[in-house]
Amino acid sequence: MRRTTVSAPGPGGYPKRASTEKLQEIFLKHASIHKNGEAFMSSNDFVRGFLGLLPHEDYNEQSVRLLAGIIDTSKDGLISFAEFQAFEGLLCVPDALYRTAFQLFDISGKGMISFKEFCEVLTSTELNERLSFGMDNQFLKLYFGKEKTRAINYSEFSQFLHDFHEECGTQAFQKFDKDGSGFITALDFQDIMVNIKNHLLTKEVQDNLVAAAGGQGGHRVSFPYFMAFNSLLSNMELIKRIYLNATNGNRTQEITKDEFLYSAQMMSQITPLEVDILFHLCHLIHQRGRIIYSDIQAIAPEQYHKRLNNRLAEIRAVSSPEERGFLIQVLESTYRFTLGSVAGAVGATAVYPIDLVKTRMQNQRTGSLLGK
Amino acid sequence: MRRTTVSAPGPGGYPKRASTEKLQEIFLKHASIHKNGEAFMSSNDFVRGFLGLLPHEDYNEQSVRLLAGIIDTSKDGLISFAEFQAFEGLLCVPDALYRTAFQLFDISGKGMISFKEFCEVLTSTELNERLSFGMDNQFLKLYFGKEKTRAINYSEFSQFLHDFHEECGTQAFQKFDKDGSGFITALDFQDIMVNIKNHLLTKEVQDNLVAAAGGQGGHRVSFPYFMAFNSLLSNMELIKRIYLNATNGNRTQEITKDEFLYSAQMMSQITPLEVDILFHLCHLIHQRGRIIYSDIQAIAPEQYHKRLNNRLAEIRAVSSPEERGFLIQVLESTYRFTLGSVAGAVGATAVYPIDLVKTRMQNQRTGSLLGK
Repeated sequence: MRRTTVSAPGPGGYPKRASTEKLQEIFLKHASIHKNGEAFMSSNDFVRGFLGLLPHEDYNEQSVRLLAGIIDTSKDGLISFAEFQAFEGLLCVPDALYRTAFQLFDISGKGMISFKEFCEVLTSTELNERLSFGMDNQFLKLYFGKEKTRAINYSEFSQFLHDFHEECGTQAFQKFDKDGSGFITALDFQDIMVNIKNHLLTKEVQDNLVAAAGGQGGHRVSFPYFMAFNSLLSNMELIKRIYLNATNGNRTQEITKDEFLYSAQMMSQITPLEVDILFHLCHLIHQRGRIIYSDIQAIAPEQYHKRLNNRLAEIRAVSSPEERGFLIQVLESTYRFTLGSVAGAVGATAVYPIDLVKTRMQNQRTGSLLGK
Repeated sequence: MRRTTVSAPGPGGYPKRASTEKLQEIFLKHASIHKNGEAFMSSNDFVRGFLGLLPHEDYNEQSVRLLAGIIDTSKDGLISFAEFQAFEGLLCVPDALYRTAFQLFDISGKGMISFKEFCEVLTSTELNERLSFGMDNQFLKLYFGKEKTRAINYSEFSQFLHDFHEECGTQAFQKFDKDGSGFITALDFQDIMVNIKNHLLTKEVQDNLVAAAGGQGGHRVSFPYFMAFNSLLSNMELIKRIYLNATNGNRTQEITKDEFLYSAQMMSQITPLEVDILFHLCHLIHQRGRIIYSDIQAIAPEQYHKRLNNRLAEIRAVSSPEERGFLIQVLESTYRFTLGSVAGAVGATAVYPIDLVKTRMQNQRTGSLLGK
């Protein structure tokens, strides 16, 4: 496994490697299997014991097996301390969630993902039950080859995950557009956004989905509107930059749609329809014709690391530094949080790294969605 | 036609409306048709006379007709002064190029674009000859409906143009990937990028396309690599922001790939593969393992308005303010430049607004590509 040390931790505190002693203490607390004098965790120890996932009695064994496979890189059903420690290192690299997702899909541990592996994980997800993603479409052939015999490596897989998530939106639209008219109802639009594109929604946007759909006249949403809506929410960092460019960095200056459009054309490929949707959403939320920076903030989806860092800050704030086991507590929380997110993602929205955290945060009290 | 006045022109000088007298002077210079005491421009007057496009004797009449249709909104084959003036207003709105492209495709002048109109314009383009874009694919059905009977309005069309351009890349990849392996050769990759994605390429990137393709090992390009490469070049504004976020605004601080990845995960959906390509491209150009702001600038495609504004600044710099007809000259140049770009776009890359300008700039001396 590639190991990377981060020389300059960013703002908010990037996870640092734990000491071997502390890790061993955690490991031994949960390892129930002893073989030739060495302790191992079983899949159950790791997923249900250590992570506290799938707590119910009627848990899904396939889910436990898939989640334990992320850390069990030798694929022998036993998690050694070396594997546990290697995984802790993985969680500290900047692309931890993409790497974690990769190991989840790399069932055979070969360092490449085959179409069969992709299918096996995907069909275990709730996303697939909701959407029944077509496994014989052109999209998958482009990545896995016409005969779907090509395995893909880590960096290609990261791009595949990203593009797959976009494709899921298109497939969901087609599923709801039964007569092929090119339109779906406002309620179906809300359904897709809440269930498949949830990671893009702030509370303000979620509350206004049906009203936003009415922006086209009539409560129907066309495919270009659907595309523009998702593209807008995916590009909110760029939208902020366009706003700040138009106001020379001032965050409280109100700007009109034309001023925004002009700034957008200067530096990006944001379409006029995306700008229409931006102003319509801001108007629905704040009843103003012009927008300021905080209006944009209200509809910009939070990103993964920001949440992770906020969460770590929270944990630090409530624990006294003198408290015994403080570091262990932080460590365990990080593990649970990050890995739990994978579980949540597999359950709720399959594979998209950004989803990993959000879903887990929402489901912290109700347990993972993966085991049903 | 919608008319918008821009209250706060941005930096670089946004086009202002011309006076009626100046416009009339220009109009009468080229109008060859007189009817009931009123002067009109023919399609030929406007496209070949005023714009100076299609100068060769064996010009394509269909091209002249399509280009004149942008301004001839009454579709009677005659361009009145009112139409000429309305068009000057159109060129001053912030989304001028999207609106110009819309009028090019709106052959019937109904304010909606039908599938038939889209096909008629597209099949006149060089892009289509190169790519023979499939007219019966799923992509077009999503926008025009299953039976392709649905007409689309201006804002939907703006999104369609954007998405169509992405789809052209995918179709070109599939065309070159004859055996459906999921790979194309480095030379085919270069061919697609230069001929279809030219607006994304700086000289530095164009010179390194084949070498960049070698980044995957072997001179083949996989589909995810192709997607990531194009996505990266489309998102360079975001890349700049990620860099500045990592350096706290310092533009000369060198950062490593891990530092960049960390900053990227904090605020965006940039994939690890896109970051790999970014660092590989910067290394090819500057032979360094770390990057600074100017490395990013070297591969960031210039945007439309920046070019337009630079061009206007150039014209101002070479003309003495006292010179008679200075304003007219600027005005004519703006017209020629903007409209000429449409012609260039129709010729070289069909319909993408950003292409409009670049293509025209390259073909200024060799004449338009539209008429063959």
